[in-house]
Amino acid sequence: MGSESTLSTVNEGLRQTPLMPAVERFKYSNRVLLRSILGRADGGIGLAGEKLLVGGWVKSGDEKKKPENSVTLPPAPPVVKDVTCSEILISRLPILRSIMKILTGVGCPALSPGKLDGPAKPVPTVAYLRINDGSCVFNLQVIVDSYMLPLSQILPAGTSVLVEGMLERTKVAGKHAVELKVEKVLHVGSVDANKYPLSKRTLSMAFLRAYPHLRPRRTPVASVARIRNSLSHSAHQFFLSNGFVNVHMPIITTTNSRAHGKVLGFASTSNKAYDNLRNVQEAKSLEVIRTAIKEKNERIEELKRSNSNKESLLIALQDLQKANELALQLEHQQPSTSRKTKEDFSENFFGEETYLSSYVQLHLECYACSLSCVYYFGPTFQAEDALSSKSLAESWKIEVELAFAELEDAMNCAEDFLMYLCHSILEHCPHDLQFMYKRIDSKCIERIKSMGSSPFARITYTEAIEILKKETVKKFEDKIEWGMNLSREHESFLADAVYQRPIIIYDYPKDSKPFYLRIRDDAKTVSAFDIIAPKAGRLVQGGQKEERLEKITESVRKLGLGEEDYDWYLDLRRYGTVKHSGFSVGLEEIVMFVTGLDDIRDTIPFPRTRGSTDT
Amino acid sequence: MGSESTLSTVNEGLRQTPLMPAVERFKYSNRVLLRSILGRADGGIGLAGEKLLVGGWVKSGDEKKKPENSVTLPPAPPVVKDVTCSEILISRLPILRSIMKILTGVGCPALSPGKLDGPAKPVPTVAYLRINDGSCVFNLQVIVDSYMLPLSQILPAGTSVLVEGMLERTKVAGKHAVELKVEKVLHVGSVDANKYPLSKRTLSMAFLRAYPHLRPRRTPVASVARIRNSLSHSAHQFFLSNGFVNVHMPIITTTNSRAHGKVLGFASTSNKAYDNLRNVQEAKSLEVIRTAIKEKNERIEELKRSNSNKESLLIALQDLQKANELALQLEHQQPSTSRKTKEDFSENFFGEETYLSSYVQLHLECYACSLSCVYYFGPTFQAEDALSSKSLAESWKIEVELAFAELEDAMNCAEDFLMYLCHSILEHCPHDLQFMYKRIDSKCIERIKSMGSSPFARITYTEAIEILKKETVKKFEDKIEWGMNLSREHESFLADAVYQRPIIIYDYPKDSKPFYLRIRDDAKTVSAFDIIAPKAGRLVQGGQKEERLEKITESVRKLGLGEEDYDWYLDLRRYGTVKHSGFSVGLEEIVMFVTGLDDIRDTIPFPRTRGSTDT
Repeated sequence: MGSESTLSTVNEGLRQTPLMPAVERFKYSNRVLLRSILGRADGGIGLAGEKLLVGGWVKSGDEKKKPENSVTLPPAPPVVKDVTCSEILISRLPILRSIMKILTGVGCPALSPGKLDGPAKPVPTVAYLRINDGSCVFNLQVIVDSYMLPLSQILPAGTSVLVEGMLERTKVAGKHAVELKVEKVLHVGSVDANKYPLSKRTLSMAFLRAYPHLRPRRTPVASVARIRNSLSHSAHQFFLSNGFVNVHMPIITTTNSRAHGKVLGFASTSNKAYDNLRNVQEAKSLEVIRTAIKEKNERIEELKRSNSNKESLLIALQDLQKANELALQLEHQQPSTSRKTKEDFSENFFGEETYLSSYVQLHLECYACSLSCVYYFGPTFQAEDALSSKSLAESWKIEVELAFAELEDAMNCAEDFLMYLCHSILEHCPHDLQFMYKRIDSKCIERIKSMGSSPFARITYTEAIEILKKETVKKFEDKIEWGMNLSREHESFLADAVYQRPIIIYDYPKDSKPFYLRIRDDAKTVSAFDIIAPKAGRLVQGGQKEERLEKITESVRKLGLGEEDYDWYLDLRRYGTVKHSGFSVGLEEIVMFVTGLDDIRDTIPFPRTRGSTDT
Repeated sequence: MGSESTLSTVNEGLRQTPLMPAVERFKYSNRVLLRSILGRADGGIGLAGEKLLVGGWVKSGDEKKKPENSVTLPPAPPVVKDVTCSEILISRLPILRSIMKILTGVGCPALSPGKLDGPAKPVPTVAYLRINDGSCVFNLQVIVDSYMLPLSQILPAGTSVLVEGMLERTKVAGKHAVELKVEKVLHVGSVDANKYPLSKRTLSMAFLRAYPHLRPRRTPVASVARIRNSLSHSAHQFFLSNGFVNVHMPIITTTNSRAHGKVLGFASTSNKAYDNLRNVQEAKSLEVIRTAIKEKNERIEELKRSNSNKESLLIALQDLQKANELALQLEHQQPSTSRKTKEDFSENFFGEETYLSSYVQLHLECYACSLSCVYYFGPTFQAEDALSSKSLAESWKIEVELAFAELEDAMNCAEDFLMYLCHSILEHCPHDLQFMYKRIDSKCIERIKSMGSSPFARITYTEAIEILKKETVKKFEDKIEWGMNLSREHESFLADAVYQRPIIIYDYPKDSKPFYLRIRDDAKTVSAFDIIAPKAGRLVQGGQKEERLEKITESVRKLGLGEEDYDWYLDLRRYGTVKHSGFSVGLEEIVMFVTGLDDIRDTIPFPRTRGSTDT
């Protein structure tokens, strides 16, 4: 339903009757979204003859001499004031504008054609603007007559316009079936083309990354945003229709998921700087104090030798003791500040050690162990020092947890979920996918269709190792051995070359996976699984959680995690424990799979990687 | 569609045909969700005679003597091992169990009835358990025979069970139409009732707050979670169907929204402790160093006096200089560490000053100014020292932004949104609302219906002040004057007493609202609006944003916000500016409005307020 399926409803309508639906106005302003014109199956032809209000940003604009046969409407007062004579002149003569640009001078009446007695007689021209309002990938051509306003004001890319006019069939055969003959210009938000950083027609994704606040105005970025939007809605739809409850897990937690990798602590990150500073500071202080102690000792020796009065000696001795104590204190603190971490937090805002959640899954288990099937969809955090093009500090994840469910149930659910996303993105975003296909990755649609069409291959980790061992043609970097971590290279070989479709690898060696996964009877493997897709790599990680109190307590102890910190987590096993399984899907990875984008920073509105400069 | 409307589909089916749909099994395990039995219009009667697998947690359990006429099935081996003789005895004799409890002794054969030659001959009993799996508010009664396992293992509240059996019509007229006669117990997750903190039948919401990881097992908390889930889905549905694009805004930002209130900084919170520690440390060091300098000076004087060799004097002088430098350095740092804040961040994880976003709206404007209608739905943060029962450090918000839209458009959209939420919660969560009505707030359903049924009143702030001024009966704490902030008391008076329905108050005094709101021609007011609901108070805050570059630049300057920090924000006005408006809705406030809960900590899965102790 909704935005995307407006399109399919229209298509539906077309197939059923030759009558086209009427203009669909945006509910919260009088304007018509371009999607409801250009996204129609008839490309908007059915709306020709309608008077419409549209808004958008200029993608490109040309000025041309007014066609001879066009009807001239009576000149209306320009909506924008403060226009100089030269601006009017320049706006009405494209060739003159070009010359002026070259000369970088403005307003040169000597160059203007004809006489300049009184106000310049305008040479009629029209602007052909391709505008876009972000509602779809297509631009609408709008035609503005020069009598309305100096066209120079609206021609630069990035200019915003709100215009009213008549929708007409395009006279010259072109890309689009309809165009808008503007009758009223209601708003112009101008752009100084010399200053606007996105003036150029083609700009790389890498260049655009430097302008996160402006880049959604460029088609590839807007298209990714719409695809991401559609995938997000489909994700909610999948879980809603399968009876899951959406739960919002905390971002700020007192559970340090160190067991999973590095975390962003409220303090652990920023304190590093402080630690360093302090260490330098203390080292310097210590140096001075040690010298002072040495001198004090010498002085005492001197006092003793010189048989000074006892009082002086006593003072000197007390002084020395004080210095010694301080030195001891500083020395004690030198190697590490870790012991103090606990107490430092007593003064932070929350009165305890807090972190940004990197795995919401542990918290989600609480809700699974009461509402039975739950999911989280929101931001998660990590502080890995990975390549910034592959890893974000802040990313959106879908975390799923099912009670009364074993490994296979979670695998089935994850597989269904990915297939559902493939079907729905093909249905809801055909035009954006077409754009990605043309501009980013010519294999993207084929890849989505393939994932959506047949069940995934399923192999155990042990089987995967066997296959890799047998391989003779392809040489892997590391020796293949049971127990090793499968690298991207291995996974890619299995999914791209061997199976040529998504694969589920399950039953991993215990030590390669997190502590909370269920230990198999062989005591060597755990009930974990990953889903690997061709090209995209690992899309899903999941598994069955350890529900047995003794086993999970042992794991927590072995890792030295601090039983009191995980006491609440163990409670779930102490009281009414159930078998439960789940999985985690990274939204950015799905966007990469769908669009073919190689850099994760292009999949999220405001990327946050280590050292990135966002706004 | 989906989970909630499964119910309405069933109802629909019932109305159309007398045939009831078949058992609806949960797709990712063989069990049947209780909702698809007890949520049916016929209360599950149509499923009587079906063999079902259900799972859940025991809400309450009773043991009774087995009815005489019941068919005795052949004893099966118990699924759970390690059961002592006394446990079996105790499980089979309720009276004995009570006595045992009083004596707090276990296994006292002398008290057991009958002879104990060989294994004890069991006195047949049955357990009547009310179990719940979180899928709906209703509990299913399951009946377990004592030959299957010692009933003491499954009777305590909180025990998890996975059982298979036959669904039967309830023989004794009671709350529910059907019950499950268990044939197989597949899993038991036991509970030590003496240790389980939620053993008591009735527990206050305040008590439950101490157990955020276990409390969703209690009906009120689970009910709130389902209501929250339903509201979240409806929110997405509303924006999707109106053509909005869901955008995920950053949590970690470099934009310190200090202009809005306090923010959670990555460093600003935790560094405080360090600052204090350092100050103490440095003060101590400085003391020692100053003494050292004094001594060095004395020594130099002595050396000079004693005409020592030049070399010794030079060394002593260098030594003194070093100590002086360090002292100077320490002194310089003493009064404040604020100057260093900037440089400290250069070594933090992101290489710059970072904050947790408190208002995502500024970022959202970037996407509105390119995709035209966008919304964010996710966590936001604040560090206000407000009452913890009314304010969370971490809360979920819906932020909406519309381009080419003025104040009225945003007001219309917000009003429609709230009305939509009311309609859909009534449709999708009838049983949970019924529970809230009975247990929390007997006016909640009436309130929701009222909001959903008629347009909101609309008054300007100036009109609101006039009304308050004219009021003679009610005495307000503060004197009513134009320019004052409307307090909860004023707002409540207007919505509850004067209008008796939700009101939109708009055009607020400039100084009472954020800097980015559009200044009206009177230069005194801004295009802001709030929506106030009876009982709940302020649900929405919004307004039209200042799109004029000069005006917004002036506001940024006046507030001393640092133009370079807001440069990106000003860019939106520099290049292709458009009129745009938006609003913000707190999900927790909506949950409070819907459920009638008074404490915000009960509306969110894991509340995070200042000094709260969550897990």
